[in-house]
Amino acid sequence: MKDNFKKYLVEFIGTFFLVFTVGSAVLLGGQDVISAISIGFVLMVMVYAGGHISGGHYNPAVSLAAAIRGALPINQIIPYWVAQILGGIFGAILINLFVLDTPYPECCGYNPVAMIIGEFLFTFALCYVVLQTATTRQLEGNSFYGLAIGSTVTVGAFAVGGILCYGAFNPAVAIGLGIFQVCCWSCILLTVLTNLFAAIAAAFVYKFMVNE
Amino acid sequence: MKDNFKKYLVEFIGTFFLVFTVGSAVLLGGQDVISAISIGFVLMVMVYAGGHISGGHYNPAVSLAAAIRGALPINQIIPYWVAQILGGIFGAILINLFVLDTPYPECCGYNPVAMIIGEFLFTFALCYVVLQTATTRQLEGNSFYGLAIGSTVTVGAFAVGGILCYGAFNPAVAIGLGIFQVCCWSCILLTVLTNLFAAIAAAFVYKFMVNE
Amino acid sequence: MKDNFKKYLVEFIGTFFLVFTVGSAVLLGGQDVISAISIGFVLMVMVYAGGHISGGHYNPAVSLAAAIRGALPINQIIPYWVAQILGGIFGAILINLFVLDTPYPECCGYNPVAMIIGEFLFTFALCYVVLQTATTRQLEGNSFYGLAIGSTVTVGAFAVGGILCYGAFNPAVAIGLGIFQVCCWSCILLTVLTNLFAAIAAAFVYKFMVNE
Amino acid sequence: MKDNFKKYLVEFIGTFFLVFTVGSAVLLGGQDVISAISIGFVLMVMVYAGGHISGGHYNPAVSLAAAIRGALPINQIIPYWVAQILGGIFGAILINLFVLDTPYPECCGYNPVAMIIGEFLFTFALCYVVLQTATTRQLEGNSFYGLAIGSTVTVGAFAVGGILCYGAFNPAVAIGLGIFQVCCWSCILLTVLTNLFAAIAAAFVYKFMVNE
Repeated sequence: MKDNFKKYLVEFIGTFFLVFTVGSAVLLGGQDVISAISIGFVLMVMVYAGGHISGGHYNPAVSLAAAIRGALPINQIIPYWVAQILGGIFGAILINLFVLDTPYPECCGYNPVAMIIGEFLFTFALCYVVLQTATTRQLEGNSFYGLAIGSTVTVGAFAVGGILCYGAFNPAVAIGLGIFQVCCWSCILLTVLTNLFAAIAAAFVYKFMVNE
Repeated sequence: MKDNFKKYLVEFIGTFFLVFTVGSAVLLGGQDVISAISIGFVLMVMVYAGGHISGGHYNPAVSLAAAIRGALPINQIIPYWVAQILGGIFGAILINLFVLDTPYPECCGYNPVAMIIGEFLFTFALCYVVLQTATTRQLEGNSFYGLAIGSTVTVGAFAVGGILCYGAFNPAVAIGLGIFQVCCWSCILLTVLTNLFAAIAAAFVYKFMVNE
Repeated sequence: MKDNFKKYLVEFIGTFFLVFTVGSAVLLGGQDVISAISIGFVLMVMVYAGGHISGGHYNPAVSLAAAIRGALPINQIIPYWVAQILGGIFGAILINLFVLDTPYPECCGYNPVAMIIGEFLFTFALCYVVLQTATTRQLEGNSFYGLAIGSTVTVGAFAVGGILCYGAFNPAVAIGLGIFQVCCWSCILLTVLTNLFAAIAAAFVYKFMVNE
Repeated sequence: MKDNFKKYLVEFIGTFFLVFTVGSAVLLGGQDVISAISIGFVLMVMVYAGGHISGGHYNPAVSLAAAIRGALPINQIIPYWVAQILGGIFGAILINLFVLDTPYPECCGYNPVAMIIGEFLFTFALCYVVLQTATTRQLEGNSFYGLAIGSTVTVGAFAVGGILCYGAFNPAVAIGLGIFQVCCWSCILLTVLTNLFAAIAAAFVYKFMVNE
């Protein structure tokens, strides 16, 4: 019980810093290079800091993939999601209080097909990389999983970031920032569903590749 | 049989993301720093994600060097190449569908001697680094091979990227993007041949250095 | 005795290079990306170079957190602080001699609430990451602690750097640069107190999470 | 005999790529961020690729520090230096052939005191980091030495790069590029002497800290 709560706390803290940094980079920084690097770095840092306790997901799609792969008990999916979404909302609230009156950039006049492809591809890549580097027995004890996982998001932000709604391949980020209308709700719903679908695809590809 | 297919799938997925990211960085990003960093990062990520299954080549030149060094069975060269080139073509197709009507930058009025030197040097460096860090018994279990391999491409993109045809020291990238006429075919052919020649040179230098 | 002196020397050298690099990046570089990356990298480098001798804190807040966690004897807090602050002052003196007559940027007309939140959040994150990655038995022998610790400061500089007084989440940096009036003294005092409070919070969160 | 020749070959190849990349970054890139990152990355890559064979110095100052520390036989200093300087000259020649008629930036109207301080500090840091991370028994088997060593040069380039003569804290780079008059010879001589002096200082500080 207390052990489970520790895991939720780790997920809450990590997702909080993730969303706070994404929001801050988008609002204060604005430059693409800074955003992409800081999103990847903060995820890497939090994966290294909390991975040994909770798995270091900070992302409902990753938790879903981990559960399908057998690295997270099925009955932990919902509490993980709750902790992550609460962390995301709390991060978004703070970033809003913090920056006070800077207006968010307007909602992108987004192209749904391009957005679905972009979110699918890099959420797939993210879950694939997490399962391979952080849950494969053959690689146990490696020191690179955080670097690989964080860098996947940086690459995704560089490659397709311009056509997304700041979702960062992560439903908790999308929902957290969505509350403050960074983007329209239909865009966020599409992001979340695409992320979860990509997580399922990545988990099955992984299970096909690795028999454990 | 199924084990071999898994390796091809890993090579396909990795080369797909590599070419998609290169194409996207060139088309959407355009900035040199972003391109160089994202190409290196995506290679690093995919090497860490799939290296334990297929070796994580994602590059016909690297597969050739690995075969000469004895890290890949000779009869696997052709299927590896097919998987990598298919991944490259598929990545290039998607990037074209994805970005719709952005025109590619025009073919460089390239200097063949400079291009050959640039492609040779950093394909040599790439194969040398792969063989040293990922196939040397003395370094088994290290966590840095992906960082070293990916960063080699980043360095190459910084050092000689301006005078190449987006080849990224990788025939699968050159062929994939070549289909959509990023560059002229003579330029691509020259790139591919130079890459393979550099791989052979690196493999023999490695074999001279390391007796295993 | 001599063993303790070695630790203080390591802390002095590391904090010296940290403050020298921060000062130099602020004065000579000026660009945000360069500052954020060089601060994170110099911390990473010094953590890897000296962590096995002194713990590699280079930051009075981190030493406080380490002492609460039980990774630093209580009677070592004061000598560690002295070594760090001396290193910071010496670094600040040299950067001032070095750059001669370039004037410092003017003191920020800072917003105290935003500054407290920013300093608190990322000093908390820094101490949390240090304790998790560098003092948890389960992760002993990992090779990522320096990367994770340094990158935390880079992320913080990206996310909230624009609203701080070059404190870098580190009282030794704040005091060192403060001597040369990079910022007003009330700002520095607020930074130092916030840092120490964040360190205490992080240490208790860590102790709650990890029973050792 | 053949074993020694392998080491010289590794040092030659690594220093060649180092100087080629520095020259290329200075001539073709020109941007400070790119130069600093590519110099650090290429050193990291070559340290990981060749460190297990030759120690991965690629720098006469580092070889001197390693010899004083006992990590390189004294009678190997001269052949190491020859291999490194030859690699540097060969890299400089190729970069000159390669870029044909781009003129080098003019020799800096350099401030000797600032240059000596800058070269001393970061050559000291470089040798200190090399000895600590790559030759300390307690850290044997770590995967971070290349990252730490390369990043030290990146930090140095950011912090004091603007006031040096492209020396990169490395006599082989200074001499290689000096042949093509990137800078005046008095500047290069001063750089080389400062580098060697800093190496000696770092080696004695290290020997004081670590009893092995």
